Amino acid sequence: MTTAAPATGSRDLPHPERGEIRLEAVLHALSDPMRLQVVRELAADGDELSCSDIVLPVTKSTTTHHFRVLRESGVIRQVYRGTAKMNGLRRDDLGDLFPGLLDSVLAAAAGQARRLGSG
Amino acid sequence: MTTAAPATGSRDLPHPERGEIRLEAVLHALSDPMRLQVVRELAADGDELSCSDIVLPVTKSTTTHHFRVLRESGVIRQVYRGTAKMNGLRRDDLGDLFPGLLDSVLAAAAGQARRLGSG
Repeated sequence: MTTAAPATGSRDLPHPERGEIRLEAVLHALSDPMRLQVVRELAADGDELSCSDIVLPVTKSTTTHHFRVLRESGVIRQVYRGTAKMNGLRRDDLGDLFPGLLDSVLAAAAGQARRLGSG
Repeated sequence: MTTAAPATGSRDLPHPERGEIRLEAVLHALSDPMRLQVVRELAADGDELSCSDIVLPVTKSTTTHHFRVLRESGVIRQVYRGTAKMNGLRRDDLGDLFPGLLDSVLAAAAGQARRLGSG
């Protein structure tokens, strides 16, 4: 029996299943200022953003690395749509596993940015 | 003008002031399973514990390193009392800076431990 490949099938990127997501990996993913900025932008947008929508003050390869850490920890889902790699927060999975955690991190990041005058 | 040295003065350990604590460093400190276990034990105890009260399955020098990361990030306060190094969570500072964050991490850690059957 064969199944029809989904449109994005041939270039699917590896993601942890919900049950494979670990708190330590999520906290590590969120512990970097660039990755935290990505997560804040995705949360503010509320939908998917392409990698090129999110401009970080680092090289392209470093940016790719940060998105990969976020994906492999289970914080974001990355899917190819045409030539664009689109990114979205895994809010449902994180909210189910770790209720309130993502929102408290986002609020903490916003509060710190206000205090430090950095956005 | 001189001030009387506190009893613990000669061996005070460096701590960040409240305003110097950074979210990224706190998340990094919490992203290690051993350090998360220390924080869970301190939270469960609610008071200070000595380093020897908290037994981790790692060497003494690695344990010392983990406590140091927790102290330097602002998650715990370490003070000498006699010959014992006592450790306490900086709940007030963290709660003021990042409301709800510590509790959501503790709840997430407890939930994960239940799911994984590891305490």
